[in-house]
Amino acid sequence: MSNRNRNYAVVGTGALGGFYGARLQKAGFEVHFLLRSDYDRVKKHGLVVESPDGDFTLEQVRAYRDANKMPKCDVIILALKTTQNHCLAKVLPPLLKDSSVVLVLQNGLDAEPEVAKIVGDQRVIGGLCFLCSYKVSPGHICHLDYGTITLGEYARDYKHTGITDRMHHIASDFKRAGIPMKLSEDLLLSRWKKLVWNIPYNALSVILDARTDELMENPHILALVEQIMAEVIAGAKSCDRIIANDFIELMLERTHKMKPYRTSMKIDYDESRPLEVEAILGNPLRIAEKAGIKMPQTSVLYRMLKFMDAQKQEAERTRRLLGVQ
Amino acid sequence: MSNRNRNYAVVGTGALGGFYGARLQKAGFEVHFLLRSDYDRVKKHGLVVESPDGDFTLEQVRAYRDANKMPKCDVIILALKTTQNHCLAKVLPPLLKDSSVVLVLQNGLDAEPEVAKIVGDQRVIGGLCFLCSYKVSPGHICHLDYGTITLGEYARDYKHTGITDRMHHIASDFKRAGIPMKLSEDLLLSRWKKLVWNIPYNALSVILDARTDELMENPHILALVEQIMAEVIAGAKSCDRIIANDFIELMLERTHKMKPYRTSMKIDYDESRPLEVEAILGNPLRIAEKAGIKMPQTSVLYRMLKFMDAQKQEAERTRRLLGVQ
Repeated sequence: MSNRNRNYAVVGTGALGGFYGARLQKAGFEVHFLLRSDYDRVKKHGLVVESPDGDFTLEQVRAYRDANKMPKCDVIILALKTTQNHCLAKVLPPLLKDSSVVLVLQNGLDAEPEVAKIVGDQRVIGGLCFLCSYKVSPGHICHLDYGTITLGEYARDYKHTGITDRMHHIASDFKRAGIPMKLSEDLLLSRWKKLVWNIPYNALSVILDARTDELMENPHILALVEQIMAEVIAGAKSCDRIIANDFIELMLERTHKMKPYRTSMKIDYDESRPLEVEAILGNPLRIAEKAGIKMPQTSVLYRMLKFMDAQKQEAERTRRLLGVQ
Repeated sequence: MSNRNRNYAVVGTGALGGFYGARLQKAGFEVHFLLRSDYDRVKKHGLVVESPDGDFTLEQVRAYRDANKMPKCDVIILALKTTQNHCLAKVLPPLLKDSSVVLVLQNGLDAEPEVAKIVGDQRVIGGLCFLCSYKVSPGHICHLDYGTITLGEYARDYKHTGITDRMHHIASDFKRAGIPMKLSEDLLLSRWKKLVWNIPYNALSVILDARTDELMENPHILALVEQIMAEVIAGAKSCDRIIANDFIELMLERTHKMKPYRTSMKIDYDESRPLEVEAILGNPLRIAEKAGIKMPQTSVLYRMLKFMDAQKQEAERTRRLLGVQ
């Protein structure tokens, strides 16, 4: 990957991919957007981003509905929900040249090896997004807060790789687009650390139909969150990744200070989208279980979410069959 | 307690106390009903019971709104929700004579010692009701299914007592009223056995907003129910009460065969009544914990229910303050 202006493909132009892609294009990069249901609208009217960093509209965007029509790109930003990962084998290969890197901006655990199976171990970088944004309507994204991405190289079995040149290159592009960037020497550790927050809050916000502030105000839920966080730390340890226990306190403190927040899983649930239960809870549970570590309370959350997800998707199918809006 | 016709007091004339009290009166017993909000209606129009065993109306019932106005009775049926147990010290003493027995038809664990503190250890019998009924409106009870009561003597610290004469006497009265009766030699064992069903199904029906059949159809929830049941069996063991593991299979089989069923806690939740979280989950958890036995998955259910109960009661207070109907 050379130092000239890199071009980007965004696979999954939603609240996350649309936001980062639009920022990159606004900063002068060539960005190609793959879309499905929002294609017509975005092709015609471009992308609108509302943000505390400044609202802007991109009247013209390079929109596609077929990956085969897109040019090969230097960096492919994978911003699909993990529930769409059955499409990857079809969507990714047409975008690849020898020097391409796939930047996996997906939630949870185990997306990188899944992508690596399709594109090769040498072409995957993971990215953890700390972003609050949602899609108001097709092509219209509202950025609420945060936005930092932590990058980490992927190597087979999540071996430590340290920080590479191409991580610096991608980070400098995103920084040019005003995105705060961090570099991680250990992608798997970073992913587990993110799960310490993501598992309890995503799950409980859906199961209990609550915002983060409502969860934090209740002493029983606060205690439960702490116990789940401790289980996730034990899960990380089963992968030889050590997270100190005071990380729990840090996460709770930060959450106390956050604005009342609807988690990404809660937004998916409210919008009747499939939940990322496997990426965020199922994969960590299975990986820890394989190493002989039980996460009994996390497993309760997992099973409840599987039930709620199935009920919701069943209702959604019925709604569609009946043609109800 | 002599063999002559015993008279009965019913404390808490709802779906359960109203049903059993009405059946006893219909069978010829003198029954005195203590009521609160339904007093006017029942005083004027009596009690209506719809039941697969035959509908009937008691035009005239001995209704009271003040325990001090009631005669002392041979058997006091305690059928209040455990969430009302702060009233017991006021309500029970006026009803007692030396030979009185308090029949505790309440859910969960630890109601008997609470009652014994007020009336003495020698005057308490526990009763476990397997009854599906609900209150349609004040004084109007719909009995759906089942109705068996299992009686067990209470002795301090739930010591084994075997089967006593007065258990036989009460059982024969209820049988005269058409209620199937069982006698237990070990009240605490019977209470833990009932919890094997009550803890998972009551909790999950509320948390997941589901009937028993919906819970049973989902493989994830079925596995979760099994795990929770195993924890409850471990809790029983912490009290030296041994429940064989194949009891789990028996409970699952029975639940599969049941008609789709809304649990009593789910009915309470839907009617915005306080949940019996402490009696059904909190007390068993604390008793097991004291004996060094952890029930981590049950504890998740407990904490979630505490949250949901608090949210619901807060909404209910707001509703009342605003005078919304």
